[in-house]
Amino acid sequence: MFERVCIVGVGFMGGSFALALKERYPQCQIFGIDINHSAISKALELKTIDGGSTQIKDTLRFDPQLVVIATPVGTFEEIAKALAQLDIKCVITDLGSVKGRIVYMMEEHLGGNFVGGHPIAGTEKSGVENSLKDLFKGKRCVITPTEKTSPQAKKMVKDLWQSLDALVEEMDPYLHDYIFGAVSHMPHAVAFALIDAIARLSKDGVNLFEYPGGGFKDFTRIASSDPIMWRDIFLENAENIVKAIEVFQESLDTLKSLIVSGKAYEITQYLSKAKELRDRIV
Amino acid sequence: MFERVCIVGVGFMGGSFALALKERYPQCQIFGIDINHSAISKALELKTIDGGSTQIKDTLRFDPQLVVIATPVGTFEEIAKALAQLDIKCVITDLGSVKGRIVYMMEEHLGGNFVGGHPIAGTEKSGVENSLKDLFKGKRCVITPTEKTSPQAKKMVKDLWQSLDALVEEMDPYLHDYIFGAVSHMPHAVAFALIDAIARLSKDGVNLFEYPGGGFKDFTRIASSDPIMWRDIFLENAENIVKAIEVFQESLDTLKSLIVSGKAYEITQYLSKAKELRDRIV
Repeated sequence: MFERVCIVGVGFMGGSFALALKERYPQCQIFGIDINHSAISKALELKTIDGGSTQIKDTLRFDPQLVVIATPVGTFEEIAKALAQLDIKCVITDLGSVKGRIVYMMEEHLGGNFVGGHPIAGTEKSGVENSLKDLFKGKRCVITPTEKTSPQAKKMVKDLWQSLDALVEEMDPYLHDYIFGAVSHMPHAVAFALIDAIARLSKDGVNLFEYPGGGFKDFTRIASSDPIMWRDIFLENAENIVKAIEVFQESLDTLKSLIVSGKAYEITQYLSKAKELRDRIV
Repeated sequence: MFERVCIVGVGFMGGSFALALKERYPQCQIFGIDINHSAISKALELKTIDGGSTQIKDTLRFDPQLVVIATPVGTFEEIAKALAQLDIKCVITDLGSVKGRIVYMMEEHLGGNFVGGHPIAGTEKSGVENSLKDLFKGKRCVITPTEKTSPQAKKMVKDLWQSLDALVEEMDPYLHDYIFGAVSHMPHAVAFALIDAIARLSKDGVNLFEYPGGGFKDFTRIASSDPIMWRDIFLENAENIVKAIEVFQESLDTLKSLIVSGKAYEITQYLSKAKELRDRIV
Protein backbone atom coordinates (compact mmCIF):
# COMPACT_ATOMS: atom_id res chain seq x y z
CA MET A 1 0.00 0.00 0.00
CA PHE A 2 2.65 2.56 1.02
CA GLU A 3 5.77 2.79 -1.11
CA ARG A 4 7.07 6.29 -0.45
CA VAL A 5 6.34 8.30 2.70
CA CYS A 6 7.99 11.58 3.63
CA ILE A 7 8.32 12.58 7.30
CA VAL A 8 8.96 16.25 8.04
CA GLY A 9 10.64 16.49 11.43
CA VAL A 10 12.84 13.56 12.39
CA GLY A 11 12.63 13.59 16.18
CA PHE A 12 11.09 11.18 18.68
CA MET A 13 7.58 11.28 17.17
CA GLY A 14 8.64 11.29 13.52
CA GLY A 15 11.20 8.57 14.21
CA SER A 16 8.68 6.40 16.05
CA PHE A 17 6.25 6.82 13.17
CA ALA A 18 8.97 5.79 10.70
CA LEU A 19 9.78 2.66 12.74
CA ALA A 20 6.11 1.67 13.04
CA LEU A 21 5.64 2.19 9.30
CA LYS A 22 8.71 0.12 8.42
CA GLU A 23 7.56 -2.73 10.59
CA ARG A 24 4.10 -2.81 8.99
CA TYR A 25 5.21 -2.03 5.42
CA PRO A 26 8.76 -3.37 5.07
CA GLN A 27 8.92 -2.36 1.39
CA CYS A 28 8.04 1.29 2.14
CA GLN A 29 10.77 3.86 1.49
CA ILE A 30 10.89 6.61 4.09
CA PHE A 31 12.38 10.00 3.39
CA GLY A 32 13.11 12.35 6.28
CA ILE A 33 13.24 16.14 6.23
CA ASP A 34 14.72 18.05 9.14
CA ILE A 35 16.37 21.46 9.37
CA ASN A 36 18.79 19.86 11.81
CA HIS A 37 21.46 18.04 9.84
CA SER A 38 22.51 15.87 12.78
CA ALA A 39 18.94 14.53 13.16
CA ILE A 40 19.04 13.38 9.53
CA SER A 41 22.45 11.76 9.81
CA LYS A 42 21.52 10.05 13.10
CA ALA A 43 18.27 8.74 11.55
CA LEU A 44 20.14 7.48 8.47
CA GLU A 45 22.73 5.79 10.64
CA LEU A 46 20.01 4.09 12.72
CA LYS A 47 18.20 3.15 9.46
CA THR A 48 15.10 4.88 10.79
CA ILE A 49 14.87 6.59 7.38
CA ASP A 50 16.10 5.53 3.94
CA GLY A 51 16.97 8.96 2.68
CA GLY A 52 16.88 12.49 3.98
CA SER A 53 17.45 16.16 3.43
CA THR A 54 17.53 19.44 5.31
CA GLN A 55 15.62 21.08 2.44
CA ILE A 56 11.85 20.78 2.32
CA LYS A 57 11.92 21.32 -1.45
CA ASP A 58 13.45 17.82 -1.75
CA THR A 59 10.05 16.42 -0.82
CA LEU A 60 9.04 16.97 -4.44
CA ARG A 61 11.97 14.99 -5.83
CA PHE A 62 11.03 12.05 -3.57
CA ASP A 63 7.45 12.02 -4.94
CA PRO A 64 5.75 10.72 -1.76
CA GLN A 65 2.26 9.24 -1.51
CA LEU A 66 1.97 10.69 1.98
CA VAL A 67 3.66 13.52 3.87
CA VAL A 68 3.61 13.36 7.68
CA ILE A 69 4.44 16.56 9.58
CA ALA A 70 6.09 15.72 12.90
CA THR A 71 7.64 19.06 13.91
CA PRO A 72 6.67 21.36 16.81
CA VAL A 73 3.29 22.94 15.96
CA GLY A 74 4.75 26.45 15.79
CA THR A 75 6.44 25.50 12.50
CA PHE A 76 3.28 24.18 10.80
CA GLU A 77 2.32 27.33 8.90
CA GLU A 78 5.76 27.76 7.37
CA ILE A 79 5.81 24.08 6.36
CA ALA A 80 2.28 24.25 4.89
CA LYS A 81 3.27 27.31 2.82
CA ALA A 82 6.42 25.58 1.57
CA LEU A 83 4.52 22.40 0.62
CA ALA A 84 1.83 24.48 -1.11
CA GLN A 85 4.48 26.30 -3.10
CA LEU A 86 5.91 22.96 -4.21
CA ASP A 87 2.39 22.07 -5.36
CA ILE A 88 2.55 18.68 -3.62
CA LYS A 89 -0.53 16.68 -4.63
CA CYS A 90 -0.39 13.81 -2.13
CA VAL A 91 -2.16 13.35 1.18
CA ILE A 92 -0.65 15.31 4.08
CA THR A 93 -1.20 14.62 7.74
CA ASP A 94 0.50 15.54 11.01
CA LEU A 95 1.27 14.24 14.51
CA GLY A 96 0.77 17.56 16.31
CA SER A 97 -0.81 18.00 19.75
CA VAL A 98 -2.83 21.08 18.76
CA LYS A 99 -5.56 21.06 16.11
CA GLY A 100 -8.35 23.72 16.12
CA ARG A 101 -7.33 26.84 14.24
CA ILE A 102 -4.20 25.11 12.94
CA VAL A 103 -6.26 22.56 10.99
CA TYR A 104 -8.20 25.31 9.18
CA MET A 105 -4.98 27.22 8.49
CA MET A 106 -3.38 24.08 7.05
CA GLU A 107 -6.46 23.52 4.86
CA GLU A 108 -6.21 27.04 3.51
CA HIS A 109 -2.73 26.26 2.25
CA LEU A 110 -3.09 22.58 1.39
CA GLY A 111 -6.79 22.07 0.63
CA GLY A 112 -8.76 18.86 1.21
CA ASN A 113 -5.67 16.64 1.05
CA PHE A 114 -4.73 17.70 4.58
CA VAL A 115 -6.05 15.52 7.40
CA GLY A 116 -5.24 16.58 10.96
CA GLY A 117 -3.99 13.79 13.20
CA HIS A 118 -2.88 13.46 16.82
CA PRO A 119 -1.73 10.10 18.13
CA ILE A 120 -2.24 10.14 21.91
CA ALA A 121 1.12 8.59 22.63
CA GLY A 122 4.50 9.85 23.65
CA THR A 123 6.99 9.86 26.44
CA GLU A 124 9.01 12.60 28.07
CA LYS A 125 11.89 11.58 25.80
CA SER A 126 12.91 13.44 22.68
CA GLY A 127 15.27 12.80 19.78
CA VAL A 128 15.16 10.23 16.97
CA GLU A 129 17.54 7.94 18.90
CA ASN A 130 14.81 7.34 21.50
CA SER A 131 12.15 6.39 18.94
CA LEU A 132 9.90 3.42 19.75
CA LYS A 133 8.40 1.24 17.04
CA ASP A 134 5.49 0.19 19.26
CA LEU A 135 4.65 3.69 20.48
CA PHE A 136 1.25 3.82 18.77
CA LYS A 137 0.10 0.23 19.27
CA GLY A 138 -3.17 0.08 21.15
CA LYS A 139 -3.11 3.87 21.61
CA ARG A 140 -5.82 6.26 20.60
CA CYS A 141 -5.23 8.40 17.50
CA VAL A 142 -7.50 11.39 17.03
CA ILE A 143 -8.10 12.56 13.47
CA THR A 144 -9.85 15.86 12.84
CA PRO A 145 -11.37 15.91 9.35
CA THR A 146 -13.54 18.91 8.41
CA GLU A 147 -16.25 19.37 5.77
CA LYS A 148 -13.47 20.31 3.34
CA THR A 149 -11.40 17.15 3.89
CA SER A 150 -11.27 14.84 0.87
CA PRO A 151 -12.97 11.52 1.75
CA GLN A 152 -10.13 9.60 0.04
CA ALA A 153 -7.48 11.45 2.05
CA LYS A 154 -9.38 10.81 5.28
CA LYS A 155 -9.75 7.12 4.42
CA MET A 156 -6.03 6.80 3.69
CA VAL A 157 -5.00 8.36 7.01
CA LYS A 158 -7.58 6.42 8.99
CA ASP A 159 -6.66 3.09 7.36
CA LEU A 160 -2.97 3.78 7.93
CA TRP A 161 -3.40 4.37 11.67
CA GLN A 162 -5.63 1.33 11.99
CA SER A 163 -3.02 -0.77 10.20
CA LEU A 164 -0.50 0.43 12.80
CA ASP A 165 -2.87 -0.88 15.52
CA ALA A 166 -3.94 2.55 16.74
CA LEU A 167 -7.54 3.16 17.79
CA VAL A 168 -8.78 5.91 15.51
CA GLU A 169 -11.31 8.45 16.78
CA GLU A 170 -12.72 11.30 14.70
CA MET A 171 -13.16 14.60 16.48
CA ASP A 172 -13.95 18.24 15.79
CA PRO A 173 -10.65 20.20 15.71
CA TYR A 174 -11.79 22.72 18.34
CA LEU A 175 -13.24 20.07 20.65
CA HIS A 176 -9.88 18.29 20.42
CA ASP A 177 -8.12 21.40 21.72
CA TYR A 178 -10.56 21.84 24.59
CA ILE A 179 -10.16 18.21 25.67
CA PHE A 180 -6.39 17.93 25.36
CA GLY A 181 -5.89 21.46 26.69
CA ALA A 182 -7.49 20.15 29.90
CA VAL A 183 -6.20 16.58 30.23
CA SER A 184 -2.72 16.93 28.74
CA HIS A 185 -1.54 20.51 28.14
CA MET A 186 -2.62 22.03 31.46
CA PRO A 187 -1.14 19.14 33.51
CA HIS A 188 2.15 19.63 31.66
CA ALA A 189 2.10 23.32 32.63
CA VAL A 190 1.47 22.19 36.23
CA ALA A 191 4.40 19.76 36.12
CA PHE A 192 6.80 22.40 34.77
CA ALA A 193 5.58 24.87 37.44
CA LEU A 194 5.99 22.24 40.14
CA ILE A 195 9.68 21.88 39.29
CA ASP A 196 10.05 25.66 39.28
CA ALA A 197 8.43 25.79 42.74
CA ILE A 198 10.64 23.04 44.16
CA ALA A 199 13.69 24.94 42.92
CA ARG A 200 12.45 28.12 44.64
CA LEU A 201 11.62 26.21 47.85
CA SER A 202 15.19 24.84 47.99
CA LYS A 203 17.18 27.05 50.35
CA ASP A 204 19.90 27.33 52.97
CA GLY A 205 21.82 24.33 51.77
CA VAL A 206 18.67 22.20 51.42
CA ASN A 207 18.47 20.86 47.86
CA LEU A 208 14.94 19.51 47.64
CA PHE A 209 15.75 17.65 44.43
CA GLU A 210 17.71 15.21 46.59
CA TYR A 211 14.39 13.98 48.03
CA PRO A 212 12.50 12.63 45.02
CA GLY A 213 10.49 10.00 46.96
CA GLY A 214 6.81 10.09 47.74
CA GLY A 215 5.45 10.29 44.22
CA PHE A 216 7.40 13.37 43.18
CA LYS A 217 9.43 11.55 40.54
CA ASP A 218 6.39 10.14 38.72
CA PHE A 219 4.50 13.32 39.16
CA THR A 220 7.13 15.44 37.44
CA ARG A 221 8.33 12.97 34.81
CA ILE A 222 6.52 14.92 32.09
CA ALA A 223 8.50 18.05 32.99
CA SER A 224 11.42 16.36 31.19
CA SER A 225 9.51 16.79 27.91
CA ASP A 226 10.94 18.83 25.04
CA PRO A 227 10.74 22.58 25.81
CA ILE A 228 10.31 23.70 22.18
CA MET A 229 7.50 21.24 21.51
CA TRP A 230 5.73 22.37 24.66
CA ARG A 231 6.37 26.08 24.14
CA ASP A 232 4.59 25.74 20.79
CA ILE A 233 1.69 23.78 22.29
CA PHE A 234 1.29 26.38 25.05
CA LEU A 235 1.27 29.22 22.53
CA GLU A 236 -0.96 27.54 19.92
CA ASN A 237 -3.58 26.31 22.41
CA ALA A 238 -3.16 29.23 24.80
CA GLU A 239 -6.84 30.05 25.26
CA ASN A 240 -7.91 26.54 26.33
CA ILE A 241 -4.82 26.01 28.45
CA VAL A 242 -5.16 29.31 30.31
CA LYS A 243 -8.83 28.55 30.95
CA ALA A 244 -7.93 25.08 32.28
CA ILE A 245 -5.13 26.51 34.44
CA GLU A 246 -7.62 28.95 35.96
CA VAL A 247 -10.11 26.20 36.78
CA PHE A 248 -7.26 24.21 38.33
CA GLN A 249 -6.17 27.28 40.33
CA GLU A 250 -9.70 27.52 41.76
CA SER A 251 -9.61 23.82 42.67
CA LEU A 252 -6.28 24.20 44.43
CA ASP A 253 -7.43 27.39 46.18
CA THR A 254 -10.44 25.53 47.53
CA LEU A 255 -8.27 22.73 48.93
CA LYS A 256 -5.78 25.24 50.36
CA SER A 257 -8.58 27.13 52.15
CA LEU A 258 -9.89 23.91 53.65
CA ILE A 259 -6.40 23.11 54.95
CA VAL A 260 -5.89 26.64 56.31
CA SER A 261 -9.19 26.52 58.19
CA GLY A 262 -8.64 22.95 59.39
CA LYS A 263 -11.91 21.64 57.94
CA ALA A 264 -11.32 17.92 58.42
CA TYR A 265 -14.70 16.71 57.17
CA GLU A 266 -14.61 18.83 53.99
CA ILE A 267 -11.02 17.79 53.24
CA THR A 268 -12.04 14.12 53.51
CA GLN A 269 -14.93 14.76 51.11
CA TYR A 270 -12.67 16.58 48.65
CA LEU A 271 -9.98 13.86 48.67
CA SER A 272 -12.47 10.99 48.60
CA LYS A 273 -14.22 12.42 45.56
CA ALA A 274 -10.88 12.89 43.76
CA LYS A 275 -9.78 9.36 44.66
CA GLU A 276 -13.06 7.90 43.44
CA LEU A 277 -12.75 9.71 40.08
CA ARG A 278 -9.08 8.73 39.69
CA ASP A 279 -9.72 5.09 40.61
CA ARG A 280 -12.23 4.82 37.78
CA ILE A 281 -9.53 5.60 35.18
CA VAL A 282 -7.50 2.50 36.04
CA MET B 1 16.99 -10.02 67.76
CA PHE B 2 13.27 -9.33 67.46
CA GLU B 3 10.91 -11.82 69.03
CA ARG B 4 7.74 -9.82 69.65
CA VAL B 5 6.76 -6.70 67.70
CA CYS B 6 3.42 -4.96 67.94
CA ILE B 7 2.09 -2.96 64.96
CA VAL B 8 -0.64 -0.44 65.65
CA GLY B 9 -2.60 0.13 62.43
CA VAL B 10 -2.77 -2.85 60.11
CA GLY B 11 -3.11 -1.18 56.70
CA PHE B 12 -0.82 -1.02 53.69
CA MET B 13 2.14 0.48 55.58
CA GLY B 14 1.77 -1.59 58.75
CA GLY B 15 1.20 -4.73 56.69
CA SER B 16 4.25 -4.07 54.50
CA PHE B 17 6.34 -3.50 57.62
CA ALA B 18 5.07 -6.81 59.06
CA LEU B 19 5.96 -8.69 55.87
CA ALA B 20 9.44 -7.15 55.71
CA LEU B 21 10.02 -8.00 59.37
CA LYS B 22 8.85 -11.61 58.91
CA GLU B 23 11.14 -12.10 55.97
CA ARG B 24 14.17 -10.80 57.86
CA TYR B 25 13.31 -12.31 61.28
CA PRO B 26 11.27 -15.46 60.56
CA GLN B 27 11.05 -16.29 64.26
CA CYS B 28 9.54 -12.90 65.17
CA GLN B 29 5.95 -12.92 66.41
CA ILE B 30 3.90 -9.98 65.13
CA PHE B 31 0.85 -8.73 66.92
CA GLY B 32 -1.48 -6.30 65.13
CA ILE B 33 -3.79 -3.71 66.66
CA ASP B 34 -6.48 -2.05 64.55
CA ILE B 35 -9.81 -0.50 65.48
CA ASN B 36 -11.14 -2.05 62.30
CA HIS B 37 -11.97 -5.69 63.00
CA SER B 38 -11.94 -6.65 59.32
CA ALA B 39 -8.34 -5.38 58.95
CA ILE B 40 -7.28 -7.72 61.76
CA SER B 41 -9.13 -10.73 60.38
CA LYS B 42 -7.80 -10.10 56.85
CA ALA B 43 -4.23 -9.76 58.19
CA LEU B 44 -4.60 -12.98 60.23
CA GLU B 45 -6.00 -14.82 57.21
CA LEU B 46 -3.09 -13.61 55.04
CA LYS B 47 -0.69 -14.53 57.85
CA THR B 48 0.66 -10.97 57.80
CA ILE B 49 0.30 -10.99 61.59
CA ASP B 50 0.36 -13.83 64.10
CA GLY B 51 -2.16 -12.40 66.48
CA GLY B 52 -4.31 -9.31 66.71
CA SER B 53 -6.82 -7.25 68.61
CA THR B 54 -9.04 -4.22 68.20
CA GLN B 55 -8.06 -3.09 71.72
CA ILE B 56 -4.84 -1.17 72.22
CA LYS B 57 -4.71 -2.36 75.85
CA ASP B 58 -3.89 -5.86 74.52
CA THR B 59 -0.45 -4.49 73.60
CA LEU B 60 0.50 -4.97 77.26
CA ARG B 61 -0.54 -8.62 77.31
CA PHE B 62 1.64 -9.25 74.22
CA ASP B 63 4.69 -7.77 75.96
CA PRO B 64 6.43 -6.44 72.80
CA GLN B 65 10.07 -5.37 72.45
CA LEU B 66 8.98 -2.76 69.91
CA VAL B 67 5.74 -0.99 69.07
CA VAL B 68 5.37 0.47 65.57
CA ILE B 69 2.61 3.02 65.01
CA ALA B 70 1.32 2.80 61.44
CA THR B 71 -1.96 4.67 61.62
CA PRO B 72 -2.91 8.03 60.03
CA VAL B 73 -0.99 10.77 61.89
CA GLY B 74 -4.20 12.35 63.24
CA THR B 75 -4.57 9.38 65.61
CA PHE B 76 -1.06 9.59 67.07
CA GLU B 77 -1.85 11.63 70.17
CA GLU B 78 -4.66 9.34 71.25
CA ILE B 79 -2.44 6.28 70.72
CA ALA B 80 0.47 7.85 72.61
CA LYS B 81 -1.81 8.63 75.55
CA ALA B 82 -3.18 5.08 75.56
CA LEU B 83 0.31 3.54 75.44
CA ALA B 84 1.50 5.89 78.20
CA GLN B 85 -1.43 4.85 80.36
CA LEU B 86 -0.49 1.20 79.83
CA ASP B 87 2.99 2.12 81.05
CA ILE B 88 4.62 0.31 78.10
CA LYS B 89 8.39 0.26 78.64
CA CYS B 90 9.61 -0.84 75.22
CA VAL B 91 10.86 1.20 72.26
CA ILE B 92 8.14 2.87 70.20
CA THR B 93 8.50 4.16 66.66
CA ASP B 94 6.17 5.14 63.83
CA LEU B 95 5.85 5.17 60.04
CA GLY B 96 4.08 8.54 59.78
CA SER B 97 4.66 11.15 57.06
CA VAL B 98 4.63 14.12 59.47
CA LYS B 99 7.17 14.61 62.24
CA GLY B 100 7.86 18.14 63.65
CA ARG B 101 5.49 19.03 66.47
CA ILE B 102 4.16 15.45 66.53
CA VAL B 103 7.53 14.04 67.57
CA TYR B 104 7.75 16.38 70.59
CA MET B 105 4.14 15.60 71.52
CA MET B 106 4.85 11.86 71.35
CA GLU B 107 7.93 12.37 73.54
CA GLU B 108 5.87 14.19 76.14
CA HIS B 109 3.70 11.13 76.50
CA LEU B 110 6.22 8.36 75.85
CA GLY B 111 9.59 9.83 76.84
CA GLY B 112 12.95 8.93 75.32
CA ASN B 113 11.80 5.52 74.17
CA PHE B 114 9.96 7.13 71.26
CA VAL B 115 11.92 7.47 68.01
CA GLY B 116 10.18 9.17 65.08
CA GLY B 117 10.52 7.37 61.76
CA HIS B 118 9.34 7.95 58.20
CA PRO B 119 10.19 5.41 55.51
CA ILE B 120 10.08 7.25 52.16
CA ALA B 121 8.19 4.50 50.44
CA GLY B 122 4.60 3.84 49.55
CA THR B 123 2.22 3.53 46.69
CA GLU B 124 -1.21 4.96 46.02
CA LYS B 125 -2.63 1.65 47.27
CA SER B 126 -4.11 1.13 50.70
CA GLY B 127 -5.27 -1.85 52.75
CA VAL B 128 -3.32 -4.73 54.30
CA GLU B 129 -4.15 -6.97 51.30
CA ASN B 130 -1.94 -4.76 49.09
CA SER B 131 1.08 -4.91 51.40
CA LEU B 132 4.49 -5.41 49.80
CA LYS B 133 7.32 -7.18 51.59
CA ASP B 134 9.98 -5.36 49.55
CA LEU B 135 8.47 -1.89 49.97
CA PHE B 136 11.35 -0.53 52.03
CA LYS B 137 14.29 -2.21 50.31
CA GLY B 138 16.76 0.34 48.99
CA LYS B 139 14.45 3.18 50.08
CA ARG B 140 15.37 6.03 52.31
CA CYS B 141 14.08 5.98 55.88
CA VAL B 142 14.23 9.24 57.82
CA ILE B 143 14.50 8.99 61.60
CA THR B 144 14.08 12.08 63.74
CA PRO B 145 15.73 11.60 67.14
CA THR B 146 15.85 14.61 69.47
CA GLU B 147 18.08 15.44 72.43
CA LYS B 148 15.62 13.54 74.61
CA THR B 149 15.74 10.31 72.59
CA SER B 150 17.37 7.41 74.39
CA PRO B 151 20.55 6.36 72.53
CA GLN B 152 19.60 2.68 72.92
CA ALA B 153 16.14 3.28 71.43
CA LYS B 154 17.63 5.20 68.52
CA LYS B 155 20.15 2.44 67.88
CA MET B 156 17.46 -0.23 67.90
CA VAL B 157 15.28 1.62 65.38
CA LYS B 158 18.23 2.52 63.16
CA ASP B 159 19.63 -1.03 63.19
CA LEU B 160 16.19 -2.43 62.44
CA TRP B 161 15.70 -0.27 59.34
CA GLN B 162 19.20 -1.02 58.13
CA SER B 163 18.58 -4.73 58.58
CA LEU B 164 15.52 -4.30 56.34
CA ASP B 165 17.81 -2.78 53.67
CA ALA B 166 16.52 0.77 54.08
CA LEU B 167 18.94 3.72 53.87
CA VAL B 168 18.65 5.47 57.21
CA GLU B 169 19.03 9.26 57.41
CA GLU B 170 18.79 11.27 60.63
CA MET B 171 16.98 14.58 60.38
CA ASP B 172 15.60 17.34 62.57
CA PRO B 173 11.82 16.78 62.96
CA TYR B 174 10.93 20.29 61.72
CA LEU B 175 13.33 20.18 58.78
CA HIS B 176 11.69 16.88 57.82
CA ASP B 177 8.31 18.58 57.63
CA TYR B 178 9.63 21.45 55.53
CA ILE B 179 11.28 19.08 53.04
CA PHE B 180 8.45 16.56 52.71
CA GLY B 181 5.84 19.32 52.82
CA ALA B 182 7.44 20.60 49.61
CA VAL B 183 8.43 17.45 47.71
CA SER B 184 5.63 15.10 48.72
CA HIS B 185 2.70 16.70 50.54
CA MET B 186 2.25 19.75 48.28
CA PRO B 187 2.45 17.65 45.07
CA HIS B 188 -0.22 15.36 46.52
CA ALA B 189 -2.46 18.41 47.09
CA VAL B 190 -1.77 19.42 43.47
CA ALA B 191 -2.71 15.93 42.20
CA PHE B 192 -5.98 15.89 44.15
CA ALA B 193 -6.79 19.42 42.89
CA LEU B 194 -5.98 18.39 39.33
CA ILE B 195 -8.60 15.65 39.47
CA ASP B 196 -11.09 18.13 40.93
CA ALA B 197 -10.33 20.54 38.06
CA ILE B 198 -10.72 17.86 35.38
CA ALA B 199 -14.11 16.96 36.86
CA ARG B 200 -15.16 20.62 36.73
CA LEU B 201 -13.86 21.03 33.16
CA SER B 202 -15.94 18.03 32.04
CA LYS B 203 -19.15 19.39 30.52
CA ASP B 204 -21.86 19.07 27.88
CA GLY B 205 -21.52 15.34 27.50
CA VAL B 206 -17.69 15.51 27.41
CA ASN B 207 -16.29 13.25 30.11
CA LEU B 208 -12.62 14.25 30.25
CA PHE B 209 -11.76 11.17 32.30
CA GLU B 210 -12.23 9.17 29.10
CA TYR B 211 -9.02 10.77 27.76
CA PRO B 212 -6.31 9.72 30.20
CA GLY B 213 -3.44 9.81 27.65
CA GLY B 214 -0.64 12.31 27.50
CA GLY B 215 0.83 11.79 30.95
CA PHE B 216 -2.38 12.46 32.84
CA LYS B 217 -2.61 8.94 34.24
CA ASP B 218 0.91 8.98 35.71
CA PHE B 219 0.52 12.51 36.85
CA THR B 220 -2.59 11.81 38.89
CA ARG B 221 -1.78 8.30 40.15
CA ILE B 222 -1.06 9.66 43.62
CA ALA B 223 -4.60 11.10 43.79
CA SER B 224 -5.73 7.50 44.36
CA SER B 225 -4.00 7.58 47.76
CA ASP B 226 -5.94 7.05 50.98
CA PRO B 227 -8.07 10.17 51.79
CA ILE B 228 -7.89 9.75 55.59
CA MET B 229 -4.13 9.34 55.61
CA TRP B 230 -3.78 12.44 53.44
CA ARG B 231 -6.36 14.50 55.32
CA ASP B 232 -4.30 13.94 58.46
CA ILE B 233 -1.03 14.83 56.71
CA PHE B 234 -2.57 18.03 55.31
CA LEU B 235 -3.86 19.05 58.73
CA GLU B 236 -0.75 18.09 60.74
CA ASN B 237 1.72 19.72 58.34
CA ALA B 238 -0.61 22.53 57.27
CA GLU B 239 1.81 25.41 57.67
CA ASN B 240 4.56 23.97 55.46
CA ILE B 241 2.10 22.64 52.89
CA VAL B 242 0.22 25.93 52.57
CA LYS B 243 3.52 27.77 52.18
CA ALA B 244 4.63 25.33 49.48
CA ILE B 245 1.26 25.58 47.70
CA GLU B 246 1.66 29.36 47.64
CA VAL B 247 5.13 29.18 46.13
CA PHE B 248 3.78 26.72 43.56
CA GLN B 249 0.87 29.08 42.81
CA GLU B 250 3.36 31.87 42.08
CA SER B 251 5.32 29.55 39.77
CA LEU B 252 2.18 28.59 37.88
CA ASP B 253 1.02 32.21 37.71
CA THR B 254 4.34 33.18 36.15
CA LEU B 255 4.01 30.49 33.47
CA LYS B 256 0.37 31.42 32.85
CA SER B 257 1.29 35.08 32.36
CA LEU B 258 4.01 34.14 29.88
CA ILE B 259 1.48 32.07 27.91
CA VAL B 260 -1.16 34.84 28.01
CA SER B 261 1.31 37.42 26.71
CA GLY B 262 2.77 35.02 24.12
CA LYS B 263 6.35 35.42 25.35
CA ALA B 264 7.96 32.62 23.34
CA TYR B 265 11.55 33.22 24.44
CA GLU B 266 10.69 33.42 28.16
CA ILE B 267 8.50 30.29 27.96
CA THR B 268 11.40 28.39 26.39
CA GLN B 269 13.67 29.55 29.20
CA TYR B 270 11.15 28.55 31.85
CA LEU B 271 10.55 25.07 30.39
CA SER B 272 14.24 24.45 29.64
CA LYS B 273 15.24 25.26 33.20
CA ALA B 274 12.52 22.94 34.56
CA LYS B 275 13.55 20.16 32.19
CA GLU B 276 17.19 20.52 33.17
CA LEU B 277 16.37 20.29 36.90
CA ARG B 278 14.03 17.33 36.37
CA ASP B 279 16.51 15.47 34.17
CA ARG B 280 19.07 15.62 36.96
CA ILE B 281 16.79 13.58 39.27
CA VAL B 282 16.86 10.52 36.99
